[in-house]
Amino acid sequence: MATRVAINGFGTIGKRVADAVAAQADMEIVGVTKTGPSFGCELAVRRGFPLYCTSDDAGRVAAFSEGGYECAGGLSELLAAADVVVDCSPGKMGAENLTKYRKAGVKAVFQGGEPHALTGLSYSSSANHDANLGADATRVVSCNTTGLSRTLVPLWEACRSLAVECTMIRRAADPGDSGKGPINAIKPVLKVPSHHGPDLMTVRPEISINSLAVAVPTTIMHVHAIVATLPSGHGLTTDAAVELFRAQPRVIVMHGGDSRITTTAEVMEMARDIGRRWGDLHEIFVWEDGVKLVGDTLYYFQAIHQESDVVPENVDAIRALTGSEADWRASVAQTDAAIAAAHGSA
Amino acid sequence: MATRVAINGFGTIGKRVADAVAAQADMEIVGVTKTGPSFGCELAVRRGFPLYCTSDDAGRVAAFSEGGYECAGGLSELLAAADVVVDCSPGKMGAENLTKYRKAGVKAVFQGGEPHALTGLSYSSSANHDANLGADATRVVSCNTTGLSRTLVPLWEACRSLAVECTMIRRAADPGDSGKGPINAIKPVLKVPSHHGPDLMTVRPEISINSLAVAVPTTIMHVHAIVATLPSGHGLTTDAAVELFRAQPRVIVMHGGDSRITTTAEVMEMARDIGRRWGDLHEIFVWEDGVKLVGDTLYYFQAIHQESDVVPENVDAIRALTGSEADWRASVAQTDAAIAAAHGSA
Amino acid sequence: MATRVAINGFGTIGKRVADAVAAQADMEIVGVTKTGPSFGCELAVRRGFPLYCTSDDAGRVAAFSEGGYECAGGLSELLAAADVVVDCSPGKMGAENLTKYRKAGVKAVFQGGEPHALTGLSYSSSANHDANLGADATRVVSCNTTGLSRTLVPLWEACRSLAVECTMIRRAADPGDSGKGPINAIKPVLKVPSHHGPDLMTVRPEISINSLAVAVPTTIMHVHAIVATLPSGHGLTTDAAVELFRAQPRVIVMHGGDSRITTTAEVMEMARDIGRRWGDLHEIFVWEDGVKLVGDTLYYFQAIHQESDVVPENVDAIRALTGSEADWRASVAQTDAAIAAAHGSA
Amino acid sequence: MATRVAINGFGTIGKRVADAVAAQADMEIVGVTKTGPSFGCELAVRRGFPLYCTSDDAGRVAAFSEGGYECAGGLSELLAAADVVVDCSPGKMGAENLTKYRKAGVKAVFQGGEPHALTGLSYSSSANHDANLGADATRVVSCNTTGLSRTLVPLWEACRSLAVECTMIRRAADPGDSGKGPINAIKPVLKVPSHHGPDLMTVRPEISINSLAVAVPTTIMHVHAIVATLPSGHGLTTDAAVELFRAQPRVIVMHGGDSRITTTAEVMEMARDIGRRWGDLHEIFVWEDGVKLVGDTLYYFQAIHQESDVVPENVDAIRALTGSEADWRASVAQTDAAIAAAHGSA
Repeated sequence: MATRVAINGFGTIGKRVADAVAAQADMEIVGVTKTGPSFGCELAVRRGFPLYCTSDDAGRVAAFSEGGYECAGGLSELLAAADVVVDCSPGKMGAENLTKYRKAGVKAVFQGGEPHALTGLSYSSSANHDANLGADATRVVSCNTTGLSRTLVPLWEACRSLAVECTMIRRAADPGDSGKGPINAIKPVLKVPSHHGPDLMTVRPEISINSLAVAVPTTIMHVHAIVATLPSGHGLTTDAAVELFRAQPRVIVMHGGDSRITTTAEVMEMARDIGRRWGDLHEIFVWEDGVKLVGDTLYYFQAIHQESDVVPENVDAIRALTGSEADWRASVAQTDAAIAAAHGSA
Repeated sequence: MATRVAINGFGTIGKRVADAVAAQADMEIVGVTKTGPSFGCELAVRRGFPLYCTSDDAGRVAAFSEGGYECAGGLSELLAAADVVVDCSPGKMGAENLTKYRKAGVKAVFQGGEPHALTGLSYSSSANHDANLGADATRVVSCNTTGLSRTLVPLWEACRSLAVECTMIRRAADPGDSGKGPINAIKPVLKVPSHHGPDLMTVRPEISINSLAVAVPTTIMHVHAIVATLPSGHGLTTDAAVELFRAQPRVIVMHGGDSRITTTAEVMEMARDIGRRWGDLHEIFVWEDGVKLVGDTLYYFQAIHQESDVVPENVDAIRALTGSEADWRASVAQTDAAIAAAHGSA
Repeated sequence: MATRVAINGFGTIGKRVADAVAAQADMEIVGVTKTGPSFGCELAVRRGFPLYCTSDDAGRVAAFSEGGYECAGGLSELLAAADVVVDCSPGKMGAENLTKYRKAGVKAVFQGGEPHALTGLSYSSSANHDANLGADATRVVSCNTTGLSRTLVPLWEACRSLAVECTMIRRAADPGDSGKGPINAIKPVLKVPSHHGPDLMTVRPEISINSLAVAVPTTIMHVHAIVATLPSGHGLTTDAAVELFRAQPRVIVMHGGDSRITTTAEVMEMARDIGRRWGDLHEIFVWEDGVKLVGDTLYYFQAIHQESDVVPENVDAIRALTGSEADWRASVAQTDAAIAAAHGSA
Repeated sequence: MATRVAINGFGTIGKRVADAVAAQADMEIVGVTKTGPSFGCELAVRRGFPLYCTSDDAGRVAAFSEGGYECAGGLSELLAAADVVVDCSPGKMGAENLTKYRKAGVKAVFQGGEPHALTGLSYSSSANHDANLGADATRVVSCNTTGLSRTLVPLWEACRSLAVECTMIRRAADPGDSGKGPINAIKPVLKVPSHHGPDLMTVRPEISINSLAVAVPTTIMHVHAIVATLPSGHGLTTDAAVELFRAQPRVIVMHGGDSRITTTAEVMEMARDIGRRWGDLHEIFVWEDGVKLVGDTLYYFQAIHQESDVVPENVDAIRALTGSEADWRASVAQTDAAIAAAHGSA
């Protein structure tokens, strides 16, 4: 029987996770929530996802029909119909929501905007799928942490010791957000070190990592400039590191010079050719000619599509919670194949 | 029998037209051309489009297999298998190519980068589909002219007289083009008046129009600021103009305030939700609350997705040349429904 | 005796006006106000401008010394020492402040963020200096209106009839403002027609004008795309229009192609070479090769330095209110020569 | 007697160095060169700097007068009148020019675009002024290396051992350069590690340093994200590191939160208030609240005004070559005081 999945919060991440879940043979979307009858309801209607209200308040539920949308009920009613809820609500609602989910006896997947302490458990497919098997609630780590996990976990597994410094060059706003700046400036994140790098230790505590972050005037991707110190006697070479990354699921390694993919602009254009909905890129992009081992220090750049790299991770996290697939590589392969089939993509 | 279509030039526009043509029941792609075994061949292979070389030179044809791609032959061989060729080659190749197409006895659709004089005939579905019926060669007007045609032609048809001044605020580079600036400046097009507006008269000579243009640091859409002087006694109102636009195919009219779609960023985000490949927007976007009739002067703003509004027009132009559908509205409806079905979009 | 000038509000505009006033032989700065002991006080101290508090509240006055700055008193004390106050306070304080100024018997110059109705009188040197002679209070029109006045007033004087449509392509944020977006979008101003153009009629009612406006991701200048319909029999030529602009004070006319000044980036770089403080450009910049007369329609582009074109206008407005110089051209020449001498600029 | 200084190449850097040299009591500008009678000659005329041609070719010298500028002769004639030449010519002319300078018996200061190998000697005031005393030719290191030198040299002197990783977030184009992109992307420099960091070792070989670099869509400043590993037993604290930076000439340390200087936009706005010509910032800007010592690792951010931080260094380098001031701190103080007096700045 298919796992019945609810999406609480049908926004930038929620709509993508709903789409990815709906593509899976072993899952079904039983409903998605909105706070009211806003423009975003259109997509839910078009995709045939039952609409629920984020609140149980009768007036707010009724407001949907006044706005021209059919609302199937409040959050409680949605939870009653679900096995797992994916919480994609905006920041700081986690604690309050977790109480509701527990009361309803529904397993829960949170996003990286919530703190690790909320659930005491975080998730990244390649890092700790098995530690999440059968758990009641977890947190899929953020887009940045997911990106770090994709390349640093296999590196750690190859070397068994890693000390990492990472500078995150972050997009200052999402593509659909016209309100935020800066237009012509660089903004350092003055909380030093930043929280981004150390968050990786919630899924792989053995990796020692710190990070600095700056925000820059672009909307399409983050870039990580990574400096990883390997243990002496690591045995790796630059080429071996490239092959390690290439062998990892959800990592694309390309030669910037040969493919003329020299910036994040060309990376996202390549992603649009892949053909996923929204032009998304679920994979981390590593420039082959930007990987270089100097002594025991490995340098590389990777690019992160902030809106979507965590999307397939949510699907895998659902399987971890239900315990339906214990092998992370099997889950990842199943997730990605189903999405590719649904999107008609590569 | 399906019209056999060749795409000469499989780049930004060519790949999109190939995709749109392949979605049509009455057409098939017999092949697409590349200059050599570059990264762009991947998409053709993935989509199952036979690859040809833009040249007949044996060495250049052979280079494809050395680069790991199967090449079915040179341009001549592709033309021999086609009824219609859509020329999406980069600028200034038109005259040379037209000679080849004529020699091969293949009908040809060019893009707006070529001058009207090349074919002496231009195309915009709502403006002059019937004038193109059965012709040997035509030119689909540029993205900007297509945008002007979508709203000004119905306005002209309602009023039978129009004098238009349009300021085009243009994106300075495409999303996948990282080389071009400016980063922080506005660039006036010092050819005054600009060529953009008057090009509309190639498909609807009765409309009197001039334009000014500036390029600005954005990659996603053009915006037109339009000032149209109507004849006295026109009988229109602001609301009637809005409804006129709303009734036109391939025009989306939305209230910026109500939908929170206040900039081109939110327009393109809405487009991504529609679900077309590459996140494209084939429609012209008109802000309902930006339309205002003051005396006999109609003011409005529209946004143009420079990479894709001409894509379905190419499909309709093919039907005009073959004469398979004489009614422009019927062709447009058929084209758009087939694309929607193929993309799983709205 | 020098006119004693107070600056109420020592921010982006206030600091520049204070600097320009201090350069004049017939004026002196008796004080500038800040709301509290913020970073902006540094410049006042360095320039030797007495610091006052925008409020008379004893606690707020005392806060300055706690913050390490000497405060000479509250606004009332400053007004008591002044003949004219230049109000550069942030928006919407005008009505409240005007009451205070009148009570203190001090003449007042407001900025373009305030409505014309506040004073019932607006100011632009070339448009209506004489109408402001001896008045108690006026409003220097905004940077955009000042720009329109510089070129449209002489055009109107040459033709005695003008119907103008202007599209304003506006910088979305000032250079020192990192909070505002958009980063990658165009934002139409959905109030149509926009208020910008018609504001010109507060200083020259005979010019008929409407405008549309868009905001774009740049910080350095506005650009106006102007379409001016001249009366039949106007007798102008493209060259005569260029010479008309060139002869006007505070207008720079340059050939974009010859000087390689093709965007606002190069205009501002040229301005930095002039050597004014802050790299300001008090002049309106007109591209000679962007001026074109087609029939009775004159097309041209001009660029506006939003932070500074009104600065010398404030100096002239002070002279108009005091009646010390009745000839606008004489005042403008005096103002500009004094600033050039103080800045060591061209 | 004043040192007679020639400027070969009167562009972005050359015009600034000429201005700074002209401000010094112990130096005079004997001439500046241009390739021909371009727009940039205006500034030289206005400042009273004799104009020479970069070439000795009679035709090219004559072209100046045809263009309306007086030309005093070719480069050879300028060199004959000079004691020191500052080479600010565009890249890759260094070797050819050095031959000319040596032949003319003139000492030479090159810029950071030339390789260290050209002269075998590089210059940064705080790092190796004394090593340059009396030399015939040197190279002022680049804007980035100068920035690193300002903070890392005092850190090294405090600790006597440093291992540094630096990620340079670079502005993609200068403010007056509208041609270069990207508009909306991040571009990693795929030469890994980048050349930027190690160049510091040309002036202070004891510091071990590597770097990564990315270019981002901004025009105003570079930012360095620095991770410096101190030797155990270093004895520093976060506060001590801040004070070390604060005590260094040409370093400004400010608290981003308190002063609301949170991005490079506000840094440059603060610089404009200082009042130097072109709104330049000769100092390196360090965010006090971005400095943090974690164990033996010191993290900090600094911002670099790419157009001007090397300008006063060129003045000091001239004094090093002539041997007129052996104490680097004395030279720096003299240089900066003279510039402040000339600019009427802080």
